[in-house]
Amino acid sequence: MFDGLSAFPLTPLNGEDVDLKAVAGLVSRAALAGVDSLGVLGSTGNYAYLSREERRAVLEAAIDAAGDVPVLAGVGAVRTRDVLTLAGDAQSAGATALLLAPVSYQRLTDDEVFGLYERVAAETDLPVVVYDNPGTTGFTFSDDLHARIARIPGIASIKIPPPTADVSARIGTLRSRLPQGTSLGISGDWVAAEALAAGCNVWYSVIGGVLPIQAKTIVDHVRAGRTGEALEESARLEPLWTLFRAYGSLRVVSGLAEELGLIPASALPLPLHGLDSEGREKLARAVRELGLEA
Amino acid sequence: MFDGLSAFPLTPLNGEDVDLKAVAGLVSRAALAGVDSLGVLGSTGNYAYLSREERRAVLEAAIDAAGDVPVLAGVGAVRTRDVLTLAGDAQSAGATALLLAPVSYQRLTDDEVFGLYERVAAETDLPVVVYDNPGTTGFTFSDDLHARIARIPGIASIKIPPPTADVSARIGTLRSRLPQGTSLGISGDWVAAEALAAGCNVWYSVIGGVLPIQAKTIVDHVRAGRTGEALEESARLEPLWTLFRAYGSLRVVSGLAEELGLIPASALPLPLHGLDSEGREKLARAVRELGLEA
Repeated sequence: MFDGLSAFPLTPLNGEDVDLKAVAGLVSRAALAGVDSLGVLGSTGNYAYLSREERRAVLEAAIDAAGDVPVLAGVGAVRTRDVLTLAGDAQSAGATALLLAPVSYQRLTDDEVFGLYERVAAETDLPVVVYDNPGTTGFTFSDDLHARIARIPGIASIKIPPPTADVSARIGTLRSRLPQGTSLGISGDWVAAEALAAGCNVWYSVIGGVLPIQAKTIVDHVRAGRTGEALEESARLEPLWTLFRAYGSLRVVSGLAEELGLIPASALPLPLHGLDSEGREKLARAVRELGLEA
Repeated sequence: MFDGLSAFPLTPLNGEDVDLKAVAGLVSRAALAGVDSLGVLGSTGNYAYLSREERRAVLEAAIDAAGDVPVLAGVGAVRTRDVLTLAGDAQSAGATALLLAPVSYQRLTDDEVFGLYERVAAETDLPVVVYDNPGTTGFTFSDDLHARIARIPGIASIKIPPPTADVSARIGTLRSRLPQGTSLGISGDWVAAEALAAGCNVWYSVIGGVLPIQAKTIVDHVRAGRTGEALEESARLEPLWTLFRAYGSLRVVSGLAEELGLIPASALPLPLHGLDSEGREKLARAVRELGLEA
């Protein structure tokens, strides 16, 4: 399950309401494309903006639409009490694993973050994915802390942000610190092909939620040892990666899903806006150049 | 109301429950000391960790205990919908003004933050304090954005973080960009005396929630033109400021209130921990040196 392609679908809104039909559509589309797992209520799934009830409804709709594909459920919240409640909800709904980021208001210490994972792992039967996303949480993991947390029973995988420098060296260094059997996962779609080729087990993929076939092509190439082809396919998608880096992947992938008719317009929760008009134009051009369609 | 000393009380927990009795105790203590206003459910009041129901209960208890002292209510949340709900609750409970930080998960653009303030100011009758706290929100205001937001009808005051360099120059520059009549407030207790002397209207004060008499002494000196005495009194409290800068003001002031017997032990919401043992020892020493008591 912590292997191959894990697609992270959007949770589009329709006005102020979660659009459960659109969620189910995105999930079944990815499942049909053959993704290995689904990361529902990840950052791309807007978990941080949704109420407990909304999160439960999204998860149930997604699990229903996913068929046999395992669903990883985002359960992050600033307070441990709420994380535990959400973990219980995810387990009841039938999730296969939990995604947990150290969502912060007050900046957290290493001991506080360690304590969070220790507590959650102890109180759930589901395996936990450590969601390392400093851009949204404000918390930066050291390799020491990753190594400490990975030794907690129940911690199954680590989702790391895109390395800023030598991807292969970064993967090697972190891998050498982790216990055997901990799955290492990459996010930051533009480095995924390179990171998988360097030994990452899984790609926690934003684009996989909207363009699952293209993402699967990259993963299939790597699995078959065709590294060159994987890197080539990723390079072909560079017009999208450029926009990801400039505007943030959520705004771009939301605009892309809208452009392809998969979700309603203005699907992000306020105060978030979609792409500005310049971004929309660039995105429309990329869609044409890449010949994308739903 | 946006003038003088605004004391920010803690919201201590007792186990997982909000300790409303302790909240009322801290609030009435500050009110009796003669603070000009109270900032309830600020960062020091743990607003980001509390449910809607908890926030309403804290606010009601605080307003009840505050007597005639105006209460500013923190209404920050990552989603605009929730901010509006909390603003309605605060108004019903009898708050006098709203404190609003651009709490973020996805990093916000300037236009998104402007849109948030515009919407909230339009939908409430209460004046709004812009709560600029990049350490907790991850969002950095430019002076341009402050100036744009301050021109929205209903925006009454701006609470800025402690300037890192020349305090007086920073206050002067920002002041020159703001409309006449916008109250400028300082946070970062260790620079408050200097910032008030440089023309800030109000001190949004963490220490004012636990040591209101000492904080009021500083404000009274500045009001009477005794800048030297104000700076001296602030310098006397340097053992506390040193700890604030090292451990974060919330952890220190929570330990201090515990040390003085004002709140129960372990009053912070998990995953937050209190001070580590080294911090506790340093705090106990500071309390002795300064001769503090409840």
